[in-house]
Amino acid sequence: MTYKANNPALKSWVEVPKDSDFPIQNLPYGIFSTAEKSARAGVAIGNHILDLTEIQSAQLFNDLNLPDRIFDKAVLNDFMDLGKKVTIPVRERISELLQVDNQELQSNDQLKAKALIPMEKATMHLPIQVGDYTDFYSSESHATNVGTMFRDPDNALLPNWKHIPVGYHGRASSIVISGTPLHRPKGQTIAQDAEKPDFGPAKLVDFELEMAFITCGKNELGDSISTDEAEEHIFGFTLFNDWSARDIQKWEYVPLGPFLAKNFGSSMSPWIVTMEALEPFRIAGPKQEPEVLPYLKFTGDYHFDIDLQVGIKPKDSEEKVVTNSNFKYMYWNVVQQLAHQTVNGCNINTGDVYASGTISGNDPSSYGSMLEISWRGTKPVAMPDGSERKFIQDHDTVIMRGHGEKDGVRIGFGEVRTELLPAK
Amino acid sequence: MTYKANNPALKSWVEVPKDSDFPIQNLPYGIFSTAEKSARAGVAIGNHILDLTEIQSAQLFNDLNLPDRIFDKAVLNDFMDLGKKVTIPVRERISELLQVDNQELQSNDQLKAKALIPMEKATMHLPIQVGDYTDFYSSESHATNVGTMFRDPDNALLPNWKHIPVGYHGRASSIVISGTPLHRPKGQTIAQDAEKPDFGPAKLVDFELEMAFITCGKNELGDSISTDEAEEHIFGFTLFNDWSARDIQKWEYVPLGPFLAKNFGSSMSPWIVTMEALEPFRIAGPKQEPEVLPYLKFTGDYHFDIDLQVGIKPKDSEEKVVTNSNFKYMYWNVVQQLAHQTVNGCNINTGDVYASGTISGNDPSSYGSMLEISWRGTKPVAMPDGSERKFIQDHDTVIMRGHGEKDGVRIGFGEVRTELLPAK
Repeated sequence: MTYKANNPALKSWVEVPKDSDFPIQNLPYGIFSTAEKSARAGVAIGNHILDLTEIQSAQLFNDLNLPDRIFDKAVLNDFMDLGKKVTIPVRERISELLQVDNQELQSNDQLKAKALIPMEKATMHLPIQVGDYTDFYSSESHATNVGTMFRDPDNALLPNWKHIPVGYHGRASSIVISGTPLHRPKGQTIAQDAEKPDFGPAKLVDFELEMAFITCGKNELGDSISTDEAEEHIFGFTLFNDWSARDIQKWEYVPLGPFLAKNFGSSMSPWIVTMEALEPFRIAGPKQEPEVLPYLKFTGDYHFDIDLQVGIKPKDSEEKVVTNSNFKYMYWNVVQQLAHQTVNGCNINTGDVYASGTISGNDPSSYGSMLEISWRGTKPVAMPDGSERKFIQDHDTVIMRGHGEKDGVRIGFGEVRTELLPAK
Repeated sequence: MTYKANNPALKSWVEVPKDSDFPIQNLPYGIFSTAEKSARAGVAIGNHILDLTEIQSAQLFNDLNLPDRIFDKAVLNDFMDLGKKVTIPVRERISELLQVDNQELQSNDQLKAKALIPMEKATMHLPIQVGDYTDFYSSESHATNVGTMFRDPDNALLPNWKHIPVGYHGRASSIVISGTPLHRPKGQTIAQDAEKPDFGPAKLVDFELEMAFITCGKNELGDSISTDEAEEHIFGFTLFNDWSARDIQKWEYVPLGPFLAKNFGSSMSPWIVTMEALEPFRIAGPKQEPEVLPYLKFTGDYHFDIDLQVGIKPKDSEEKVVTNSNFKYMYWNVVQQLAHQTVNGCNINTGDVYASGTISGNDPSSYGSMLEISWRGTKPVAMPDGSERKFIQDHDTVIMRGHGEKDGVRIGFGEVRTELLPAK
């Protein structure tokens, strides 16, 4: 598909700074509030937010048959639930309204003053009511690194890994928006060769650089979503930091998987970049060998060339960029993940979160977690203030960023920024 | 605590058949609809449902300061969210209204006709909007049986098992109410010694006999709920069938735990029996050795003497009871489970589901799954129609029941009844 709103030649009458993540070709959705008004839906354009409730009130969406006050909600779920036959035309219409040769909003000073809100006057909120949250494990380099460190370098990947987009259920309640500090978790850990576990603050707290897709629509329990149908159910993407406590995980995870090592918090960027805005960045993935089972076969390109970056900013110090990765470093793609999630008849809902798993490239400069970057703490990273990092320390802020760039257009995700506070 | 509503001497003016699960001392909450009116809250009494919306409309809850139309909802979450300071007095008030010497409702024929609905005229609905769902693994016999079959009979329990109430996140979307048929899941399985997996309907579909508790209230992310505080957050219990596909599970579960083997469906009984109604059945659990960490210590009794039973009814045949177990066969109790869930700061919400894990006693007649009852298929169970069962076959209906009995009072859960349909 090609979308008019993606045309690289488009310019907006709203100022978009060079290197902004939010040119007119992006138009990601978020939920924001201001001093004057409670949470509602908007799209990002440059350093502003277009208040979609004002656009609807001003009758500028009239040809789209939207439900009344569909944007006047604290989450995007009802809007996303309308499906792509509605949400794609809405994005196209927003694009029209913001184009430099369109006067409908541009020339209406009164409406413009209400509808175009400087980002610094807004507070962003978690944009969705999360139904279920699945975390996949779909980067081959990451799975290989973990297998090499913890199991057997000669058989780093488990036998199922190239047959199954391995995933597990995570905790929906503790998904928070960028800017929400998290406390270092307490829990059980066991020292090397100790007979009994200890209890206390986790020592090995880590980030995991991930992308997440958010679903729209549902399937009935018992039905499956094929790889061909999956795209209809992928509304958009955010950056995702799947915080992990490595020492808690090591002790708890057999035989039923990670639990308290993960569910103390996961951080999401505030803007949902639509599947459509990412169209120009779709690329082919790696050849999958051995051949996958028929339900995992697909046609089309479902990998994305999106540069990803993680920085650590110690308290009162400069930020240090610790990795430069890319969303293309996936083995399994998003339509395979969703087809696998539902092949047994599991039902999805609007507002589910499906995270990629840690995204690591082949090279250490592109690894997606401190576990890998510091290779279990054996290769500490020097920080600008002279300190070292093997894992994340109290009052460190972890910042993830991502964007694609093509034909002079930069489609970005903003950032997910989280301070780790000491254990309570 | 003792509650007036639990007094074994109480009699109701509503007829309660002998062996009913729902005497006046129970009063479990559910959500039901009728031909005339959509889903709302009620309590079970004998073979009737007391429509709580009618009781509130008739001003009979007036001294309780309830929010308007709190029972006129499709789920119980808003009511449960009021907390025990409200929900306990509501139960006491309902008990008063149903007592044989109380005339407020008994003598009001017009109201009685509207408010007291025969169960056969009602359709039951899933009583909660499920937030998150955790499945524990807290029965020692079950964990020992599984470890013996799949790992090492001499070291059947993994090293963490007696230190951690092991649990993992399950799928909230596919929790369904009793009476909802489920389809046999399709998925990847691998034959013994095969190099590649196959795809098709799972062959080894099993029930897991569990109890689940439903939470009320929340903690802030970063805070913990102690074993002392946990009871305030346990609204009540249901029977829970954690359907499992053993052959899918075996291939998929390393290293991140069960996923598609479980999330095709979990079945819940319709009536939530309150923590307060179960007070008479609280008993001490087994001595926990080695000593648990301080955050898992507790005072009081949090095991429950509740008889549990599972029957399998093949199509066009009689039911065969395949196990008689008891909720007391737990190692970890419910306040330890909730304290563990939150010790890292994980936040809970009203309407979360925390299932016990399969409940097996020491004796094969009390095992809680076909995996254990048939010992991996080596000991098939004879059925009334002459067939055998190692696992569950298409069109089998699995029926779970549970009740406690003391001082002549039987507090029951009704049943969770699920037909397994062929794969779609």
